[in-house]
Amino acid sequence: MQHLTRTDDFSVQEINAILDDAKNFSDGHFERILQDKLIITLFFENSTRTKSSFEIAAKRLGAEIVHLDVAQSSTKKGETLVDTAMNLDAMGPHAIIVRHQNAGVPKILSKHTKAAIINAGDGAHAHPTQALLDLFTLKEHFKDLKGKKVAIVGDIKNSRVANSNIELLSRFGMEVILVAPPHFLPKTELRTTHFLEEIIDEVDAIMSLRTQTERHSSQSYASLKDYASDFCITSELVGDRDIILLHPGPVHRNIDISDKLLADERCKVLDQVANGVSIRMAVLKKLINDV
Amino acid sequence: MQHLTRTDDFSVQEINAILDDAKNFSDGHFERILQDKLIITLFFENSTRTKSSFEIAAKRLGAEIVHLDVAQSSTKKGETLVDTAMNLDAMGPHAIIVRHQNAGVPKILSKHTKAAIINAGDGAHAHPTQALLDLFTLKEHFKDLKGKKVAIVGDIKNSRVANSNIELLSRFGMEVILVAPPHFLPKTELRTTHFLEEIIDEVDAIMSLRTQTERHSSQSYASLKDYASDFCITSELVGDRDIILLHPGPVHRNIDISDKLLADERCKVLDQVANGVSIRMAVLKKLINDV
Amino acid sequence: MQHLTRTDDFSVQEINAILDDAKNFSDGHFERILQDKLIITLFFENSTRTKSSFEIAAKRLGAEIVHLDVAQSSTKKGETLVDTAMNLDAMGPHAIIVRHQNAGVPKILSKHTKAAIINAGDGAHAHPTQALLDLFTLKEHFKDLKGKKVAIVGDIKNSRVANSNIELLSRFGMEVILVAPPHFLPKTELRTTHFLEEIIDEVDAIMSLRTQTERHSSQSYASLKDYASDFCITSELVGDRDIILLHPGPVHRNIDISDKLLADERCKVLDQVANGVSIRMAVLKKLINDV
Repeated sequence: MQHLTRTDDFSVQEINAILDDAKNFSDGHFERILQDKLIITLFFENSTRTKSSFEIAAKRLGAEIVHLDVAQSSTKKGETLVDTAMNLDAMGPHAIIVRHQNAGVPKILSKHTKAAIINAGDGAHAHPTQALLDLFTLKEHFKDLKGKKVAIVGDIKNSRVANSNIELLSRFGMEVILVAPPHFLPKTELRTTHFLEEIIDEVDAIMSLRTQTERHSSQSYASLKDYASDFCITSELVGDRDIILLHPGPVHRNIDISDKLLADERCKVLDQVANGVSIRMAVLKKLINDV
Repeated sequence: MQHLTRTDDFSVQEINAILDDAKNFSDGHFERILQDKLIITLFFENSTRTKSSFEIAAKRLGAEIVHLDVAQSSTKKGETLVDTAMNLDAMGPHAIIVRHQNAGVPKILSKHTKAAIINAGDGAHAHPTQALLDLFTLKEHFKDLKGKKVAIVGDIKNSRVANSNIELLSRFGMEVILVAPPHFLPKTELRTTHFLEEIIDEVDAIMSLRTQTERHSSQSYASLKDYASDFCITSELVGDRDIILLHPGPVHRNIDISDKLLADERCKVLDQVANGVSIRMAVLKKLINDV
Repeated sequence: MQHLTRTDDFSVQEINAILDDAKNFSDGHFERILQDKLIITLFFENSTRTKSSFEIAAKRLGAEIVHLDVAQSSTKKGETLVDTAMNLDAMGPHAIIVRHQNAGVPKILSKHTKAAIINAGDGAHAHPTQALLDLFTLKEHFKDLKGKKVAIVGDIKNSRVANSNIELLSRFGMEVILVAPPHFLPKTELRTTHFLEEIIDEVDAIMSLRTQTERHSSQSYASLKDYASDFCITSELVGDRDIILLHPGPVHRNIDISDKLLADERCKVLDQVANGVSIRMAVLKKLINDV
């Protein structure tokens, strides 16, 4: 039994097999190989987008999916997280997809379940399927990633997306550069800068992160505009350079990326969404079928 | 690629084919012709009834359906409506069923998606599948609609159900008469009256609309009773006339229609519900399969 | 057409057939015998656990399941319960699974629907599938139930689980003893006691009920601890006696059952959860397929 709680749960060889499967799936080559398999989603944080992506991935492969409505669940009645997971596990699912605001929850649950645990995001720790779909998107474009440079831009310190991508993209030979204001930078051995202009001439890809505006009060609007003036990815910044642009979505228009650049074909945001379904199909196949 | 945002998106010939399919489906003749097809619902207004009807229609034909929980979705995080639709579209659905409180939203979204957009109600503008099921119910009863007269009764001005039915039933040869208090009447070239008694001897069908009591404060109860005394469809009003009664539901008992008349076999409300599933199956077949 | 509103809706012979089917299902012997069948859930009380169990049971047999979101449904718009059920019924489901805070609701609805009504819990009246899964769990363990003694412990007076189990387990030859503080005991002809110690040497099984802590204010914490000191099932109480332990879940740790005993193999709580899916599969088969 294997779980996916972090990108380094999978070897390079395993990930290459996932990328191959994802490529086939995105070309429309798939069948109902997970017919009669059961998948439960257990989302303690709202995430319509990620949940829908997993649901569509599961259904395309013929699996049944059951959503546990956490807001109304027994955890509200004082049941512990592990008890909830063990109870769900007793119903016989083949996988449980977990999102939780606290880092480490999927790992803990994986020690108590027969079902494969798939981490759909835990705190600021990891979001492995997001990193896998980003890797897939980059590889589809560049073919060979060795030596390619990617700048990750935004609130890197609090970002599980950044965290998982740093591990995964580095392992696949990319150089990762972190671009952020000082309070958004983690302690790191990677190259860092506060200025996009400093790295714009050498990078092959920019991954913009989402500003967490929903956690800001109205007073912080000024600082959000300040942030955008320094870190919004714009057509003026990119010019006609051969750079592709990624973002995990939802994009905050003209804060994260400008309207004009979002409409540019170098912007791969919608490709990422499509690739997300294919990658999640491949992950479900690996954890449920290839055992 | 075709969409259904208004009844006049379909020609008479196309609608006749839909009615034929719906008839077959309601006779139990259907198979899983939409197996491996994916449908997303995107409801910005609550509508358990319409959403369930579409969901059942989809599942009967073997399609997979994914509900986007709008209350928890990215639009809450400031994402634009078009971005939400384009992101969903990138996940590869064959159709997106949209309900929105603002007129015109489904039309706008249809310009940005590869999926077929199906309008499940937009503001006071249109509710095409409701009008199609009403047409189907009337045709099942009368066979030939030419020259038949239908009175639409209630808050016609604010009703997307009335709006779509006026277009559709007129096109299929029925004479539509509008019956309402002055403030509920739209500007129209159709015949209008404030008095049910004035048309009761000549109509073949009455379509009562739902009073929007949930938007009324408790103070308006008096005016609601006043409304009912003039516009509630009762056994006393209808007598033993050969008139059938329709209502889009949920019926407000003894305000819209009296208890006694609801139990009368001339009342087709539950037939409409059953026909709604068949019509939606036919619409899904047309937009997803017949392309 | 048969319904399941109480355990005594089924004869001993019918229940034995259900237990046989459940045994086969729990051994993994099942197929998509409910393919193209439609089941609607209509839950007026939250119950993630029971709803998920039914959903998984339905999907394992290939049925389609549609959840009616009652919080957003037409009953909120003043529609009567019977009208809601008749409208759902008009959409052609084969079964409707109902949970309601008021005793008797499933029975009333069953008089107005063509679909089979399955009671998933109504007030303090009945919870028949819970009692059936408890019977199944006991029979799996003891094989022959005749003369075996089971103590039901906790708020028996307000418990539909206790109510259904008293009828069913008695009918299958078990002696039921009620153990509770005076205010939690119903009027009964069964043997009762306020002291666990009084019956611990003679019972073969203990069924602990859930304390309804979510209905208690913080002030009652003292009384909850008092309750636990008298009625919590602990390793010290049970010792090395040959007694199995049941609980409908979610378990309130160290109030209903101690941590240590929950981890003991005599504790069958997770078996009950697994058996719940199998029993519900058997009930759905009986009411939908075996007609």
